[in-house]
Amino acid sequence: MYTYNYLLSFTSEVFIKMGCSRADAEKAAKVFLAAELRGLASHGMIRIKDYYQLWEAKRINTRPNIKIVHETPSTAVVDGDGAIGMIAATRSMEIAIEKAEKVGTGWVSTKGSNHYGIAGYYAMMALEHDMIGMSMTNANPLVAPTFSVSPMLGTNPIAVAIPAGRHPAFVADFATTPIARGKLAVAEKKGEKTLMGYVQDKDGTPTDDPTVLKRGGSMVTLGGDYEHGSHKGFCLSSIVDIFSAVLSGANFGPFVPPSVAYLPVLDRKVGEGTGHFFGAMRIDAFQPASEFKSKMDEWIDTFKQAKPAPNREKVIIPGEPEREKEHKIISEGITIIPAIAADLKEIANQLGIEFELK
Amino acid sequence: MYTYNYLLSFTSEVFIKMGCSRADAEKAAKVFLAAELRGLASHGMIRIKDYYQLWEAKRINTRPNIKIVHETPSTAVVDGDGAIGMIAATRSMEIAIEKAEKVGTGWVSTKGSNHYGIAGYYAMMALEHDMIGMSMTNANPLVAPTFSVSPMLGTNPIAVAIPAGRHPAFVADFATTPIARGKLAVAEKKGEKTLMGYVQDKDGTPTDDPTVLKRGGSMVTLGGDYEHGSHKGFCLSSIVDIFSAVLSGANFGPFVPPSVAYLPVLDRKVGEGTGHFFGAMRIDAFQPASEFKSKMDEWIDTFKQAKPAPNREKVIIPGEPEREKEHKIISEGITIIPAIAADLKEIANQLGIEFELK
Repeated sequence: MYTYNYLLSFTSEVFIKMGCSRADAEKAAKVFLAAELRGLASHGMIRIKDYYQLWEAKRINTRPNIKIVHETPSTAVVDGDGAIGMIAATRSMEIAIEKAEKVGTGWVSTKGSNHYGIAGYYAMMALEHDMIGMSMTNANPLVAPTFSVSPMLGTNPIAVAIPAGRHPAFVADFATTPIARGKLAVAEKKGEKTLMGYVQDKDGTPTDDPTVLKRGGSMVTLGGDYEHGSHKGFCLSSIVDIFSAVLSGANFGPFVPPSVAYLPVLDRKVGEGTGHFFGAMRIDAFQPASEFKSKMDEWIDTFKQAKPAPNREKVIIPGEPEREKEHKIISEGITIIPAIAADLKEIANQLGIEFELK
Repeated sequence: MYTYNYLLSFTSEVFIKMGCSRADAEKAAKVFLAAELRGLASHGMIRIKDYYQLWEAKRINTRPNIKIVHETPSTAVVDGDGAIGMIAATRSMEIAIEKAEKVGTGWVSTKGSNHYGIAGYYAMMALEHDMIGMSMTNANPLVAPTFSVSPMLGTNPIAVAIPAGRHPAFVADFATTPIARGKLAVAEKKGEKTLMGYVQDKDGTPTDDPTVLKRGGSMVTLGGDYEHGSHKGFCLSSIVDIFSAVLSGANFGPFVPPSVAYLPVLDRKVGEGTGHFFGAMRIDAFQPASEFKSKMDEWIDTFKQAKPAPNREKVIIPGEPEREKEHKIISEGITIIPAIAADLKEIANQLGIEFELK
């Protein structure tokens, strides 16, 4: 078990050793740790090795000149200059919030970035400003459009955070596929099959084999098959890709660069790096924040009173399970599985810093 | 077969006789006819009777004072004052576009409205201004949140229209359920079962009986069941409801007023009328419109080159099938089934105007 502060400090040191400024390193570290706290370990400490290897391969810029390259009062395009995704994304969301302070809403499309961790982190940055926050990103192609077998889209997540009053905020954060990719990896590691409805093989035949992505298979979009609305999942994933990459000038669809160093840089580029899209809407650009928040409490109360289905306890308000995990993990500490702790120890040795195995 | 112009003129006359100004009547008529042209007859001429009956029941205001009740440079809340949904929505989207002209983007949340027809119509209004358009609306509760059997949400559609260059625009317009409600009505009329994965009975048992909504059943959200991501569909539907109704002060969730006069007005109100949400983003608030549009062409070309799945012809770019129908229907004419034509004839008789049965 590790404390939050121990891992935050360690992660910051790793990025400082890689050349980041202290401020940037701390920004990035917070996003990795937020994933651990929210029970999304697949986006947490395990990813530090990916960034370390990208840095070793000189595919990451740890001294980026992140800047606005085009703007209006409510919009900006940000060039991440090859930065660690968490650093480009945090800065981009700060800009969206600054614009919302001035003209009601702010919308930022970011190019030249990399894998940004959990989408929800940036959406939630808006909450303390009494704003609604939004965040989405494209990602490595694994997902086939409806009627196709070609992996052309990432799991392209969407996050929306909405402030409430008495109740905690509504926080939706979801991949536009039936399940996140991490669940396939877990099934594979356990040697188990998955349910049907997540993946297809290279010929488009549905399968329950979680390893099929390694043999030309692909994930399907939210909805599963056409008869159950997979074309709607394709629409959502496409919108994420276009807002993140076509609006900013990043690589779109199949051209998104790999987020791991063991996959080669792609031959064809159609833009710069990975793309994200961020939004912030000031609540009081629509109505007084206090009124809105008490209406949100009423909304949440209404949905909590829905009659549960058999063998189900209750309706879950988006963000509730992650928040419960956060409370638990903060008080109990963060578990790092031995294989990942060993990787972190190895990185620490390479960089000449300390990491305790415990 | 009717010509587009004949039905447009007839529909305008109906609304003028109901008390609308000519300008408002023509705005509404265009939305009804757009549904017919796009092959979405379930939102077309069949709905005129619903509006006629709501007007007879004095549940529609045909002389509304539609106004902005709160605004910032990039946002507004619009009060539809009980208007026909198409009229309140067209005006709201115009306001979003005006704001985008000035500060890059415009975002409007609308209360005091009614059923607004096809979501895509308003999103597409942005295209001629070289803007990305967005539109969403809440609707009568038919859909149960994940883990519940209580119909609390509408089929809450989302539409996003994105300009392209050589290619026609990308236009996504989809309910946040596996299928639109109209498909259940069609199956019922034919006496057929549906596929599994669309509806559940009042106890939460999945069923293929399309009539189950009449006996306390409910539709499920996009994803189908929890294991396949129905909670993501629930997130989407909730976001539509909150942006449309909590932000504007309309009725949310189970309190959305019925869009048909044969259902009684609800006892409890938590706001005013039905709610919508609209967005417009000027392309050149991000990058020169010509560059963006040629990138969108490249995006569309890329996805059209995806390898088709067995027995599938090609990947369908969102909006393509509707546009093909539009071309066909404009040249061939609009078919109105006899039962609906008879209803229109009856309305025409009541209002003292002409309607030819043909």
